[in-house]
Amino acid sequence: MTNTSASTIVPRADGRAPDELREVRFTRGWLDSAEGSVLVEFGATRVLCAASFTQGVPRWRKGSGQGWVTAEYAMLPRSTNTRSDRESIKGRVGGRTHEISRLIGRSLRAIIDVGALGENTIVLDCDVLQADGGTRTAAITGAYVALADAVAWGVAHGAIAARTTPVLTDSVAAVSVGIVDGQPVLDLPYVEDVAAETDMNVVVTGSGGFVEVQGTAERKPFERHELDELLDLAVTGTAKLTELQRAALAAPLAGR
Amino acid sequence: MTNTSASTIVPRADGRAPDELREVRFTRGWLDSAEGSVLVEFGATRVLCAASFTQGVPRWRKGSGQGWVTAEYAMLPRSTNTRSDRESIKGRVGGRTHEISRLIGRSLRAIIDVGALGENTIVLDCDVLQADGGTRTAAITGAYVALADAVAWGVAHGAIAARTTPVLTDSVAAVSVGIVDGQPVLDLPYVEDVAAETDMNVVVTGSGGFVEVQGTAERKPFERHELDELLDLAVTGTAKLTELQRAALAAPLAGR
Amino acid sequence: MTNTSASTIVPRADGRAPDELREVRFTRGWLDSAEGSVLVEFGATRVLCAASFTQGVPRWRKGSGQGWVTAEYAMLPRSTNTRSDRESIKGRVGGRTHEISRLIGRSLRAIIDVGALGENTIVLDCDVLQADGGTRTAAITGAYVALADAVAWGVAHGAIAARTTPVLTDSVAAVSVGIVDGQPVLDLPYVEDVAAETDMNVVVTGSGGFVEVQGTAERKPFERHELDELLDLAVTGTAKLTELQRAALAAPLAGR
Amino acid sequence: MTNTSASTIVPRADGRAPDELREVRFTRGWLDSAEGSVLVEFGATRVLCAASFTQGVPRWRKGSGQGWVTAEYAMLPRSTNTRSDRESIKGRVGGRTHEISRLIGRSLRAIIDVGALGENTIVLDCDVLQADGGTRTAAITGAYVALADAVAWGVAHGAIAARTTPVLTDSVAAVSVGIVDGQPVLDLPYVEDVAAETDMNVVVTGSGGFVEVQGTAERKPFERHELDELLDLAVTGTAKLTELQRAALAAPLAGR
Amino acid sequence: MTNTSASTIVPRADGRAPDELREVRFTRGWLDSAEGSVLVEFGATRVLCAASFTQGVPRWRKGSGQGWVTAEYAMLPRSTNTRSDRESIKGRVGGRTHEISRLIGRSLRAIIDVGALGENTIVLDCDVLQADGGTRTAAITGAYVALADAVAWGVAHGAIAARTTPVLTDSVAAVSVGIVDGQPVLDLPYVEDVAAETDMNVVVTGSGGFVEVQGTAERKPFERHELDELLDLAVTGTAKLTELQRAALAAPLAGR
Amino acid sequence: MTNTSASTIVPRADGRAPDELREVRFTRGWLDSAEGSVLVEFGATRVLCAASFTQGVPRWRKGSGQGWVTAEYAMLPRSTNTRSDRESIKGRVGGRTHEISRLIGRSLRAIIDVGALGENTIVLDCDVLQADGGTRTAAITGAYVALADAVAWGVAHGAIAARTTPVLTDSVAAVSVGIVDGQPVLDLPYVEDVAAETDMNVVVTGSGGFVEVQGTAERKPFERHELDELLDLAVTGTAKLTELQRAALAAPLAGR
Repeated sequence: MTNTSASTIVPRADGRAPDELREVRFTRGWLDSAEGSVLVEFGATRVLCAASFTQGVPRWRKGSGQGWVTAEYAMLPRSTNTRSDRESIKGRVGGRTHEISRLIGRSLRAIIDVGALGENTIVLDCDVLQADGGTRTAAITGAYVALADAVAWGVAHGAIAARTTPVLTDSVAAVSVGIVDGQPVLDLPYVEDVAAETDMNVVVTGSGGFVEVQGTAERKPFERHELDELLDLAVTGTAKLTELQRAALAAPLAGR
Repeated sequence: MTNTSASTIVPRADGRAPDELREVRFTRGWLDSAEGSVLVEFGATRVLCAASFTQGVPRWRKGSGQGWVTAEYAMLPRSTNTRSDRESIKGRVGGRTHEISRLIGRSLRAIIDVGALGENTIVLDCDVLQADGGTRTAAITGAYVALADAVAWGVAHGAIAARTTPVLTDSVAAVSVGIVDGQPVLDLPYVEDVAAETDMNVVVTGSGGFVEVQGTAERKPFERHELDELLDLAVTGTAKLTELQRAALAAPLAGR
Repeated sequence: MTNTSASTIVPRADGRAPDELREVRFTRGWLDSAEGSVLVEFGATRVLCAASFTQGVPRWRKGSGQGWVTAEYAMLPRSTNTRSDRESIKGRVGGRTHEISRLIGRSLRAIIDVGALGENTIVLDCDVLQADGGTRTAAITGAYVALADAVAWGVAHGAIAARTTPVLTDSVAAVSVGIVDGQPVLDLPYVEDVAAETDMNVVVTGSGGFVEVQGTAERKPFERHELDELLDLAVTGTAKLTELQRAALAAPLAGR
Repeated sequence: MTNTSASTIVPRADGRAPDELREVRFTRGWLDSAEGSVLVEFGATRVLCAASFTQGVPRWRKGSGQGWVTAEYAMLPRSTNTRSDRESIKGRVGGRTHEISRLIGRSLRAIIDVGALGENTIVLDCDVLQADGGTRTAAITGAYVALADAVAWGVAHGAIAARTTPVLTDSVAAVSVGIVDGQPVLDLPYVEDVAAETDMNVVVTGSGGFVEVQGTAERKPFERHELDELLDLAVTGTAKLTELQRAALAAPLAGR
Repeated sequence: MTNTSASTIVPRADGRAPDELREVRFTRGWLDSAEGSVLVEFGATRVLCAASFTQGVPRWRKGSGQGWVTAEYAMLPRSTNTRSDRESIKGRVGGRTHEISRLIGRSLRAIIDVGALGENTIVLDCDVLQADGGTRTAAITGAYVALADAVAWGVAHGAIAARTTPVLTDSVAAVSVGIVDGQPVLDLPYVEDVAAETDMNVVVTGSGGFVEVQGTAERKPFERHELDELLDLAVTGTAKLTELQRAALAAPLAGR
Repeated sequence: MTNTSASTIVPRADGRAPDELREVRFTRGWLDSAEGSVLVEFGATRVLCAASFTQGVPRWRKGSGQGWVTAEYAMLPRSTNTRSDRESIKGRVGGRTHEISRLIGRSLRAIIDVGALGENTIVLDCDVLQADGGTRTAAITGAYVALADAVAWGVAHGAIAARTTPVLTDSVAAVSVGIVDGQPVLDLPYVEDVAAETDMNVVVTGSGGFVEVQGTAERKPFERHELDELLDLAVTGTAKLTELQRAALAAPLAGR
C-alpha cells in the first residue's frame, strides 16, 4: 500500500483494501475457431477478447517485411445498467469507442516486434459482454493473453518464421486507479468510477515500463502528490496482473 | 422421424439422427442488470439474448394503451470461422442483419398481447458470440425465454398492471431444417448448412401454430413432398424446444 | 380452385374469384437503351424492371469462368398512398428494401447457369412506380422477362459464347397468397394485404419446383392445412404467370 | 428564330430546326393516389412528376400562416445509357442531384403565393425514368403541371381556404439551350448535350419573367452576343412550353 | 456605371458606388507548405485558398497524358453570424457546399490546359474563415491566384514538363451582382445579399469571356433589361479583379 | 530547467533551450461576429478558436439551471505538409478528431462553474489553419482565451446573470512535452514530434492543478524518472502560458 496510514482507510463498498484487485479470471480458448481468445473477468466486468491471425498486411505495409497488430473495442447494448443504442444502427462509431480501440492497439504494439511477426496481421476484438468499470483496462490485459495465444498459433502453424528473436518482447497489462472520497484506490468498479474525483488508466509492461498514462480530473484538478500515489498503486496492480497473465498462459490450451 | 426408411439414413457428421436436435442449453440470468437474459446454446452456437424493459413506448404508439416488442440481432466479428468486419465501422447494417432482426421481432410479437403489456417497451438484443449454424433460430428460441423473464420482472415490479389476461399468450420456438445429401435433417450445424440443397427456418408456437415458414432452394428447386417432410421435422423439433423452454423457465431465477 | 366449397366463397372487393390473378401485362422494351427492360403490371401495381448487361464480373468472381446476376429493388417515394422519404436522403437502405432485393436476386440465380453465362454480370433494377400490393412478386415475375431479353441480347451480340447448354435453365415467377377473412386468396392487392391474417410469397420455376416459400402469420398463427391450401393456390397462380411470361417473350422485340 | 441566316443552318441530327422543341407530352393523373402527377416527355426524356399534398408545414414554418413547396429530383439507375449506382446504396446524395432538386424547388416557389397556400406542404418528386438530355428542364416544366393539379385538389377538398388571391401567381417552364457546332440550338438531346460548347438552362414564367439563368461554358468561354442569342432561343422555347402546359391543364382530369 | 441616372442612385450601406468593389486583398504564401496559397479578402469576407500539387492523376485519367484540377469549398462553423453545424459531424456534405465546389472546379478548368499540365493533380481547398457575402466569387478569384502559384511551383520543381504552350491559358475571376431596392449593384455584402431581389454570380476570364452566369430571382422574376444591366456590372467588376490578380501575382513570393 | 546538466544538452533544431516555448501569440477578436475568438499561434502552428454563445442548453440539461460548454476540433485539409481528405467528404469524423474534441471540452469544463453560467451554451470551435506540432495543446490554450471573452460578452449583454461567484473559477493552459534523443523537451514542433520516444500532453490550471495527463510511449516504454522530468517541464511551460494568457486578456478588446 501507498503512504496512507491504515487508520484513515475508508472501507470500500465491496470490502477490498485500497490496493487490492477484484477477482481476475482468464478463460482461454473461449471461442473454438479464433487463433487466440480469452474471456477476461475483473469482478463482474466481462470482456471477450478474440485474436484473429491472417497472413498478409494492409496495402500500405506490403513489402515492408513487418506485421501489423490492431484492435477494436465495442460494448454490447445491454452490457451496461441501461441499454445503449447500437453504433451499427446509429451508423457511426462514437468518440469513446474510437479512443479506446486506439489505446488497446497502441498498448499491444508496444510489446510486439513487428519485424519478427513478419507480414502477418493480428486483429484483437475486445467486446464487452458486461460492464462494471475498468472495461478498457480489462480489455488490454485480456487482449495480451489472446495475442500471446495467436502468436503461438502462428509459430506452431509455420505462419511466423522461426527466428532467434521473440515476437513478443514483453507482456503488457493495464489497470484503473482513482481518487474516491479523497483516497487513492485500485481497480474501480462502476460505483467507484462514477464517484471518483480523479480517474487514471495506466498501461505497464511486464518489466515495469510505462506505455500509457491517462489521468483525468473528473471533479477538481489533482495535485502532483496525488498523481504520484496513483502511479504507485497502478504499478502495484499491473505487477499483480502480470503474474496472473503468466499463470494463465502457463497452462496448456485445450485442443492445441 | 418422417417417412424415410431407416435403412437409407446417412449418418450425420456429428452422429445425430436426422430428427435429433443438438444439445440445447439455456443459462438464464447471464447478465446482472438486464430484466431478462439468457445465454442460449445449440451445440457450439451461442447467442446472448438480453431483454431490456423500459416504461413508455415509441412516439408513434403513445396513448394507444399498447406496448411494443422489438429485436436486434448481430454477430460479433469473430463469432465465425473467419473474421467479418464490424457493421458499426462499415457505417451500415447489412441486409442479412436487418432481415433476421425483423424476423425475431415478428416472431415474438406473435405471442405477446401488447394490450396486456401496457405502454411498456421490451427490446431483445440477440448477439451471436459463436456461430455454428442456426443462429437466427437459436436467437428466437432464447429470446422467448429472456422475454418471459422480462415480463415476469415487469409484473413483479408493478410496471405491468395486473390483469386477468396473460401478457404472453403462448410460447414460441424456432428451428432450422434442410435437405443434406438428399436427406431431410433437423437443426443444421455450419458444415451441414453450407452443404444443404434446401434450407428452411420455421417458427412455431408452443401450441403448434406456424408463425413463419421461410424455405429457400440453395442449389435446386425443391418438390412439394420435400417441403412436407421438412415441415414435419420442424414441428417435431420445435415441440422438443418448447419442452426445454418450459423446463428452463420452471427453475427459480437466482436473485429474483 | 382449392377445397373450399363454392357456397362459402366471400366475394373479393374487386370481384375476382379467390384463385384469380389480377390483369397482368408485360411491356417489353420500355427503355431504349437497357439490354432488357419490361414494365410489368399486376392490376394497379407497376414495376419497371431493367436488366443491365456488362462484360466482366465483380473482383471476387474473376477468373472463375462464371457470371453473376444480382438485383436491386426500390420504391419511388409516391408509389404508395402516402409519400415515403427517399432512402437516398435518409442515407441508408431500409431492412425491407434489402430483404426484397436479396429475394429477387436469389430467385433469378435459381434458374440461370452462371457457367453458361460466362464472366458477364447482369443487374436487375426493379423500381416500383406504383404500389398496390404484391410488388416483390411482380418484380420477380417481370425481372425474369427482362433477364431473358438481356441474355438474348448477350447471345446476339456475342458477349455470351455459344454453347450447347442454355444460359437459362428454366423460367421463374412469383405470386402472393394469403388468408383474408378466413379464406385463402391469390394475388392480394393492398386492401387485402393489410387485412390478411397470413401472408405468403411463393417463388416457383416454370417446371413447378419451389424456389422460395415465405409465409408470415400477420395476426394469428396458421395451421398446417391453411399452409397447404395457400401453397396450392400459389402453384396455380405461378403456372398461369409462367404461361403469360412465355406469351410475352414469344413476341418479337421491336428494334432488335 | 434568331439572327442566323437560313443559309448557314446546320441540320440537327434529329432533323429539327434550331429553335424547335422536341415532341412534348404531358400525361396527367399517371399515378392513382398522388394529389397531382404527370408523366412529362421531351422526346425520349421521360420524367414522372408527383405532387404530394399534406396539411401542415415543417416545424420551422409553423404558425407563419404560410405554406411550403419543395422538390426532390432523382434518376433511376438505368435511365441512362449505362447503369449508374443508386444513391441510396452509396449512402449519400450526389452534388448534381442536390443542385437540381434545389433548382426545381426555387423555380416553383417563384410562382406560388405561400400565403394563399396556407399552412400546407406540397412536395414534388421528379424521377427520371429515361434520360435523353434536358431532364432538369423537363422536370420543372412537368412539375408545374403536377403542382397545378395538387393545388386544384387542395382547393376542391377544402384543404386550401378560398381566397380572393390565387395560389399560383403565374406558370413556370424551363428549357435547355446551347451552342453546338457554333450554332445556338433549343432543347438539346443527349447527343447534342455532350457536344455543346456552351450549355444553358433557363427558367421563365408564363408572363415572360426570368426565374433562373444558368449558363456554363463547357469547352471555351462564350461571348456576350452568344449569351444574347441563347436567351432569345430560351424565351421562344419557354413561351411554346407555356402554351402546351395550358393546353394540358385545360383538359378535365379523369377521376376528379 | 450602367444606364441609371446619377440622381436616382440610392447610397449603399457601406458608402460604395453601385459599381464599386469592396476592398480586395490577396495575401500570397499564407501557408508554409502548400504549393500555392492565398488568403483572399473582399471586405470582411475572408477565404483561405490552398492549392495542393501532387504528381499523378485519379485512376480514371491515368495514361491520358492530361492533368486534373478540382476544388472543395467549405465554411468554418463560426464564419457566419450564427454558428452552423459541421458537415463532418452531420456526416454529409450539403447541397450548397457541393454546388459551390463544383462551380469553382469548373471555373478553374476553363482556363487551364490539362494537356500542358501533364499527369499532375491540383486540388484547390477554399475554406471560408469569415463570411460577409460573395464567398463563392471570392473563392474563385483567390483560387486562381493560388493555382497560378502552384503551377509556377510545378514548373520550377520540374514536375511540369517545359512546353511551348502555357499551362494557364487565361486568368479567371468572379463577382456577385444583384438588384437591391431596384438598383443593380456590384459585390454584395451579407446585408445587401439578403435584401436582393435578384442575385447573380458571374465568372469571367481575364480576356473577357463568360465562363458561368448564374442568375436567380429571389423575390420576383427579373426582366431582360435588368439581366443586361447586371451583366454589364459584372463585366466591369471582373475586369477590375483581373487587374488586382495580376498586380498580386507580379510581386515575388517570399521563400521561392 | 530540469535536472539535466548543461553540458549534455543537445541543441534543438530551432535553437530553443529544452524548457523554452516557441513564440506564442494570441490575436483576440479575429472574427467580427463570434462572441469570443482568438487566433492562437505556437510558432508556425495556427489555430482559430471561436466561442459561440447561445442562450439555452441541450434538451437533456433543460431545467437544471446549469450551462454547458463543449468543443469541436478539426484540421483544414492543407494545414499539414501533405493534404488530408476532408472528414465531411469521408462522411465520418475520425478517431483522433473525436479524441481531441473531447479533451478540449473536458479541459474547459474543469475551470467553469456551470451553475454560475446559467442555462447558456458555449461551443468552442478550434480549427487548425496550419499544423506544426502541438495543435491540441495550442487549441486548449487559445480556447480558454476565447471562452473568457465569450463569458465577458455574456455578462456584458446580460445573458449571464450577475452573481457573487465568478463563472470562470480558474484559467487553463496546455502544453506538449516529450523525450527526443533521450532528452526531455518542451513544446515540440512537428520535426521533434515525429522523432519523440515519448510524447505527453499536459493540461494544467492557472493555479497549478492537473486537469489531464496523457503520456504515450511512442517507441519504447518510459521510466518513472522520465515521467517525473516531463511533468516538471510541463508545469514550467503551462505556468508561462498562464502568464501570456493573462497578458493577452488584460488588453481591451477592440469593438467592445
